[in-house]
Formats: sequence, structure tokens, C-alpha cells
Amino acid sequence: MARAYRTAITTHVDGGLYVYGHNLVDLAGNTSFAKAIFLILKGEMPDKSSEKMFEAILTVAIDHGVEPASVVAARNIYSGGSPVQAAVAGGILALGEFHGGAIEAAMENFKKYESVGVKRLVEDFAKSGTRVAGFGHRLYDTDPRTQRLLEVAKQNGFFGKYVKFALLCEGEISKGGKKLPLNIDGIVAALLLEMDFNPKVGKGVFIIARTPGLVAHVVEEALREKPVRRLLEKDVEYDGPRPRK
Amino acid sequence: MARAYRTAITTHVDGGLYVYGHNLVDLAGNTSFAKAIFLILKGEMPDKSSEKMFEAILTVAIDHGVEPASVVAARNIYSGGSPVQAAVAGGILALGEFHGGAIEAAMENFKKYESVGVKRLVEDFAKSGTRVAGFGHRLYDTDPRTQRLLEVAKQNGFFGKYVKFALLCEGEISKGGKKLPLNIDGIVAALLLEMDFNPKVGKGVFIIARTPGLVAHVVEEALREKPVRRLLEKDVEYDGPRPRK
Amino acid sequence: MARAYRTAITTHVDGGLYVYGHNLVDLAGNTSFAKAIFLILKGEMPDKSSEKMFEAILTVAIDHGVEPASVVAARNIYSGGSPVQAAVAGGILALGEFHGGAIEAAMENFKKYESVGVKRLVEDFAKSGTRVAGFGHRLYDTDPRTQRLLEVAKQNGFFGKYVKFALLCEGEISKGGKKLPLNIDGIVAALLLEMDFNPKVGKGVFIIARTPGLVAHVVEEALREKPVRRLLEKDVEYDGPRPRK
Amino acid sequence: MARAYRTAITTHVDGGLYVYGHNLVDLAGNTSFAKAIFLILKGEMPDKSSEKMFEAILTVAIDHGVEPASVVAARNIYSGGSPVQAAVAGGILALGEFHGGAIEAAMENFKKYESVGVKRLVEDFAKSGTRVAGFGHRLYDTDPRTQRLLEVAKQNGFFGKYVKFALLCEGEISKGGKKLPLNIDGIVAALLLEMDFNPKVGKGVFIIARTPGLVAHVVEEALREKPVRRLLEKDVEYDGPRPRK
Repeated sequence: MARAYRTAITTHVDGGLYVYGHNLVDLAGNTSFAKAIFLILKGEMPDKSSEKMFEAILTVAIDHGVEPASVVAARNIYSGGSPVQAAVAGGILALGEFHGGAIEAAMENFKKYESVGVKRLVEDFAKSGTRVAGFGHRLYDTDPRTQRLLEVAKQNGFFGKYVKFALLCEGEISKGGKKLPLNIDGIVAALLLEMDFNPKVGKGVFIIARTPGLVAHVVEEALREKPVRRLLEKDVEYDGPRPRK
Repeated sequence: MARAYRTAITTHVDGGLYVYGHNLVDLAGNTSFAKAIFLILKGEMPDKSSEKMFEAILTVAIDHGVEPASVVAARNIYSGGSPVQAAVAGGILALGEFHGGAIEAAMENFKKYESVGVKRLVEDFAKSGTRVAGFGHRLYDTDPRTQRLLEVAKQNGFFGKYVKFALLCEGEISKGGKKLPLNIDGIVAALLLEMDFNPKVGKGVFIIARTPGLVAHVVEEALREKPVRRLLEKDVEYDGPRPRK
Repeated sequence: MARAYRTAITTHVDGGLYVYGHNLVDLAGNTSFAKAIFLILKGEMPDKSSEKMFEAILTVAIDHGVEPASVVAARNIYSGGSPVQAAVAGGILALGEFHGGAIEAAMENFKKYESVGVKRLVEDFAKSGTRVAGFGHRLYDTDPRTQRLLEVAKQNGFFGKYVKFALLCEGEISKGGKKLPLNIDGIVAALLLEMDFNPKVGKGVFIIARTPGLVAHVVEEALREKPVRRLLEKDVEYDGPRPRK
Repeated sequence: MARAYRTAITTHVDGGLYVYGHNLVDLAGNTSFAKAIFLILKGEMPDKSSEKMFEAILTVAIDHGVEPASVVAARNIYSGGSPVQAAVAGGILALGEFHGGAIEAAMENFKKYESVGVKRLVEDFAKSGTRVAGFGHRLYDTDPRTQRLLEVAKQNGFFGKYVKFALLCEGEISKGGKKLPLNIDGIVAALLLEMDFNPKVGKGVFIIARTPGLVAHVVEEALREKPVRRLLEKDVEYDGPRPRK
């Protein structure tokens, strides 16, 4: 009878710990954390240029200030008196479709339409009335993080068909309207495809990158603020029914 | 060999579903939800007065407006594009020690000190320099929810030794200083002891009571707000190092 | 300028707490918890028959044993040494599309197709190759919980067009193949429509109903088990690469 | 009036993004992810040897197989139909006191007792009847991960007073009884003190290290398993009351 849990990731052999066949204890001290992340997500070690590209992706997304919804959630949770792991988990819960969670969808799109052409992508999305994942940002007309990743991609041989297609999309989508720049989700999606990752890891890469930022904010809340946060009257508008007699 | 999971709560017998021996399908339509909650937390059905008391506890704690940290967390999580269950879970994560999570500790205290006396409790806490769980509220000098539960307790025969001890504590703790009123955590703790609940259920009772409020706020966020929330510049103060050259 | 948070649910007026205009402190002791839940989800008080129907829905879904994924998640989280709120939240996180989370989708479907007809629903789903939300159960050919809710619906005047349509769907979907019974998600979806709820509350109703069950399991884990759970060797199959030299 | 959120971590200046004064966009492509993590947790860049030590800590803790409670929670949550961020968050929720969460407590202990002496530590814990955080492991007599981190510490100049004290503790605690080896929590705690980290980051370092492993397991669940997990009858023992008539 089949066992309840099946895995190809990590096994214990004679007291040793192996990740996709690599001795984890030997890796420690001899390899970078980013390399180990690449290994555990893809099942194989990165070459030198993939490692550099991957380090850049993870680094650039490590934090975006106290303003995002994920940080506000994490800090409020800690402030209620729950432990660090609960607050960090709460921050990660906010990483949905509109907040770092579009990478998987963007990867699926780029994969599907790269061979069919950008016109078709734009038509299909116009028909369905939905936004194309990976484009647009509330703050940026040109996302400086995207620009930086494009440079690193050029330097390391990842300016390939998916990146080019993503830039084509940016031009086409922004035609005759508001500029919708290739955002961090979009460029990370294209680069993960260049590195031959499965789209299913897309959201996870952003979660991994952002977790240290969330931890830093939770620790800052712990060391500098007093419990418990509460919205101020001036930030709240009540527009429901008046008290009944 | 012992099986991995052991439970005394619910079992399946011949296609029927039994909670502590009561046929759940028969209960539905013949009993109140509050009665079923009492059963699943305590292992036995409440009598009429316990049911009334328990309904009052759950009802009075169902919501406290949009201001608490739990609601802010839940709404920010939904706003990031995650589903309802993630947002509600995130709200519950905020229900820590300083936000509804003091009931268990208050139950333990009342249980331990009720026979020893209030002087000893005050001394012990003064020595350790910690606050007594279940007293004090940022908004209220007298918590109207506590007052209401005291009335219902009188009407239903639960104004017993633990409630009296809690009120004694309130007087003693507030002596010669700021009034620290018996808050909702404190009165619920005393009442759960009157009903002979295990302190370990304390936090859970508050979670159960508040979950509908969290759901309502998340649904309101879904129906009335656009993604994604972000703090405004005016709400943020940066006091870290200046950009380096 | 608009305030950051807008709500029509709960407000504080002169130290009083009002939910959709109803004084919460007055409700406590005078109303059932189920009634308060109805109020906070719908913005108005239920009449007697709606209250009975709603109590039955919440009660029948309160628990389904230790076996479901949500309970396993919750118990494992508690076992790692995290507090009750973290474990209950973790259980709720598992209430996704395949585990109580289909109510919203079923409500949307019933609403859309009730006037168009069941043939069209079956055709559309056959074309898209997806399963119809609210039908089928791993354990049951006929879900006893559904049967019970149908009885209560008849007794209370909720055996209306949506319930009838749901039963029509059951017949049509199961034609010439495996019986796909109207499951608990499906019947709850139809009944919430009969009571004129917004589909967006669907998932929340199940979360509210199941939270007491999750609390009970977490408390049982706390009182009866030792940390920390770990899968046994016999339950795990490793099929990844062998250790490298 | 004070602003609601205060931070010293990250700021936006003229479209640039600065973490503790370092331009994040410039860091990307020029620095390792581990270096950026160090920066965001400590407020300053690591030197070469701290970077190596930190990479080793993060790498060795990246995963420990499918067996731990965190992985079981994460996979069950995904299996219920919730998205990747919910499943990863659920896994992190399990990282409590008994599962990676002891680093902070161990740091506090080592800091407090290092100058006072190991005898006093053992006495104090014997008196209070609690276990010393950072020692003992269900699987290992000697944790190979600890051994490896000790080697890397020697090579990089971190075999200092806290590491020596931790090893002293191991000897003293294990005297005349079961060997309680310095476990991964314990050695990481000592090393973070050698690198002068605040104890409050302890839990966060483990969360950051383990998140990629959790992502990998959730992705594997997504790509290889069908919803929805459910315990088998053979794994469950019911010992509650029998069905009533």
C-alpha cells in the first residue's frame, strides 16, 4: 500500500541529510545560501551565472519598506501579543495575487504566448477584461528593480526569449494609454523561465526573498513599539446605520 | 503500536457522525449553535442556564469595530489578493496575549489564587513586576461588556466565587492608582471557571466569538475596497541612516 | 481626504458598541450567538425561521473528526510549540477550494444557472472540463448532513428555487456515471441563497461553523499529546536521487 | 503628533530604495542574498568571515525532510485547496518552541549565564524543572549539523566564548544521564551571539533558513499529489464516548 507521504527532496541516510542527493552538511560552509535555495527548488545545482542571477533576484526583492500590506499585517499581529513565527506567517499570507503573487501567472502567460505572439496575448486579455500579470506599479513608471535585473540578466546571459517577450508585452500593453511598466513580478517571471524553473515555484521565490524583510520588520516592532496597535479615530469612517432606539 | 492520532471528540459510526456520543445530524435543527460549541469544548451538553450564559459571552465579543489589530491584519491580507480563509486566519493570528488572548492566563490565576486570597495575588504580581491578566482597557474605565455579563451572570446563577474573586481583584489592583477595570478577558475567564471549563479552552472561546466579526470585515473589504492597501507617506516616519554615497 | 478605513459594521457611540445599529451589549443575554452571526454577516436580524435554518447549518458543520487536512494541520502546528491562535489559524488556512471552500463558487453557479437551466450548467462545465462545486464526497454516496439540512429547510420554508435547482443538478451531474451527491458545501450554498446572502460570505459561514471544532482538536492536542509530532519512517517513501559520492 | 508607523529599516528617496542606507538596487547583482539578509537583520554589512558563517547557518537548516510537523502542516493546507502563500505560512506557524523556535531562548540563556557559569545555569533549570533550550534531539546523539557549524566556526574565527560555553553546557547537562547534544537551535544561538546579533532575531533566522524547504515541499505537493489529504482509518484511534441512543 502506498505510504501517506512521498518525497523526492530530502532523505536521511545513515545519519546524513541529503537534498536531491547532495550532502547538506557538506554544502554548509562550501556553498552559498542562494545556491542551496536554487538546489531545493529545482533539484539541481546552479552554474555560476544562474547563481549570480538568482542572488540578484532574491536580493532586490528583500524589502520594500514599512508601507506594504504584508508588513502592516505582520506588525499588527505581533502587536497583539503573538510570537514572531505568527507575525511573519501573517505577513506572508498577504503575498497574494496583487502583492508579489503574480509571478506564477506571469510565467504561465509568457510560456503560453511567447510562441504565439504578443498581439494574441493583448487580444485575449482585452476580450476577458482582465489585467496581464506582471505589469503596472502604483509607485513606478519605470521600476528601478526591473532595470537592475535587466542589467544583471545581460551580464549573465539571461536576456533571452522570455525577457525579450516580456519587454515586447510592456510596449504593446502600454500603447495608447497609461504606461504599465514591467514590474518586479513580471521580470522575475521572465528570468525564472530563462532559468527553466517550473511556474509553480514563482510565488515561492518571492516569498523566500521577502521573508527576511518581514522578519526585520517584526523584530523592529518587538524592539521599538508597545502593544497593542489600534487605528486612531481620525483614520476611520463609519457609514453604517445609526444606533437604534 | 499506538496510532498516530487519538481523539475522544468525534467519530464516524455506520455513516453517522457523533460528537462526544451525540449524533450531530440529529442535533442540527434541534439545538442551538452555541449549545453545540459548548458540547464540543466541554464534552457534555449545557443546561439551560449555562447555555444562556454561554450565548451571552459569545455574542458580546463578536466584534469591536475596525480598529483592533486583528481586523487591520485581516483586511490588509485580503487586500494583497489572498482568499477569505487566509485573511480570517491572519486576523486570528493577532489574538495574542494583548488582544483577547489573556483569558487562559486569567483562568489560571483565578484558579490558583481564589483560595489563597487576593492580597497574595497582588503581592506576587508586584514582586514579578508583571500585569495581572484580565484587567485594564485602553478605551474603558468601566467596560460595558463586563457590566452586561455580570448582569446575565446574576440572572443565571453564575455570580459565584470566581466572579466575586475577579471583582475583589479589580478593587485591590486599582487601589491608589489608575483604575484597571475587569475587562472582557477577565470576566469571561471568571465565568468559564464558574461553568467548570478547563483553562486551556480560554483563548479558543474568544477566537470562536470573534471569528464572525473577522469574516464580516473581510467580506466588507472584498465588497467595498480595491486592492492593494499601502500606508500613506504621512503615516510613516523613517528614522534610519541616510542614503550612503 | 478619504480616511484609510471605512466600515458600515460596528461603531462606538458614547461608550456604546453598535453592530449595524444594534446595541451589542443589549443583544448579549437577549439573543442567540447564531442570531448575532446572522446580523453581522447580513446587516439585519433574522426572522424566527431564518434563525432556525442558520443554527442548523452552523451546527451540522461544526466538526468532521480528526481526519480532515485542517485538523491535521492545526494539531501539527500546536505540536511544534506555537500558541492556540496559531494552530487554529493554521487549521482555517486549510479550508480551501477542496475542503469547505466551495460554497462561494457553488452560490455563484446556482445564481447564474438557476434561471438558465441545469442542461446549460452541465454543458458549460463539460466543455471547460472542471467539476461543479458542491457535488461529490469521498466518504458519502448520500451525505447525511445534506439530508438533514433538507428536512430542516422543508420545516422552515427554505425548500425554494435554489434548493430545488441544486437537487436537479445532482441528478443531472450523476447521470450515467458515479453518483456525485449534493454535498455539505452545495446544500449550504443553496440555503444561503434562499436566505438572500451575498455569495462572498459563503466561505466565511463554513469557517465560522468549523472553528469550534478546530479549537476542540487543538485543546485536545494540548491536553493529551506531547510535542513534537513527526512522521514515522513507515509513512514516508523517498523516491529522489541517491546520495552522491 | 507621532506617525502611526516608524521604521529605521528601508526608505524610498527619489525613486531609490535604501536598506539601512544601502541602495538595494545597487546591492542586487553585487552582493549575495545572505549578505543582504545579514544587513536587514543587523543594520550593517557583514565582513567576509561573518558572511561565510552566516551562509553556513542558513544553508544547513534549509530542510530536514518531509517528516517535521511544519512540512505536514504546509502540505495538508495546500491539499485543502489554499494557495502557496497560505501553505508556506502554515508551515512557518509550526516553528514554535519545540521546532526551531528555541534559538531566542537559548541566546538569552547563553548571554545571561556565560559570565555566571554553567553550574548556576544547571542549578537554576533543575530548580525550575524546565529543559534548557538548545539541547537534545529526537534523532541524533550527536547532531551532524552542529558538528559542521563548529568546524566552519573554527575556520572563520567564531569559536568564541559563547560557543565554548554552549559546549560546556552540553557536557554538564548530559552528566549522569541521557546525552543531550547541543542541537541546531543551540549552536545557531551561540553563533548568532558571536556575531553580536540581538536575541530577538533568533527565531527569525531559523524561519528564513527553513522557508525555502517549506516552499519546495509545497511545490512538490502541488505537482505530485491530488487533493485532499485525509487520515486513514488505521491511523486514528477513537477513545471517546460511544454513540448514545
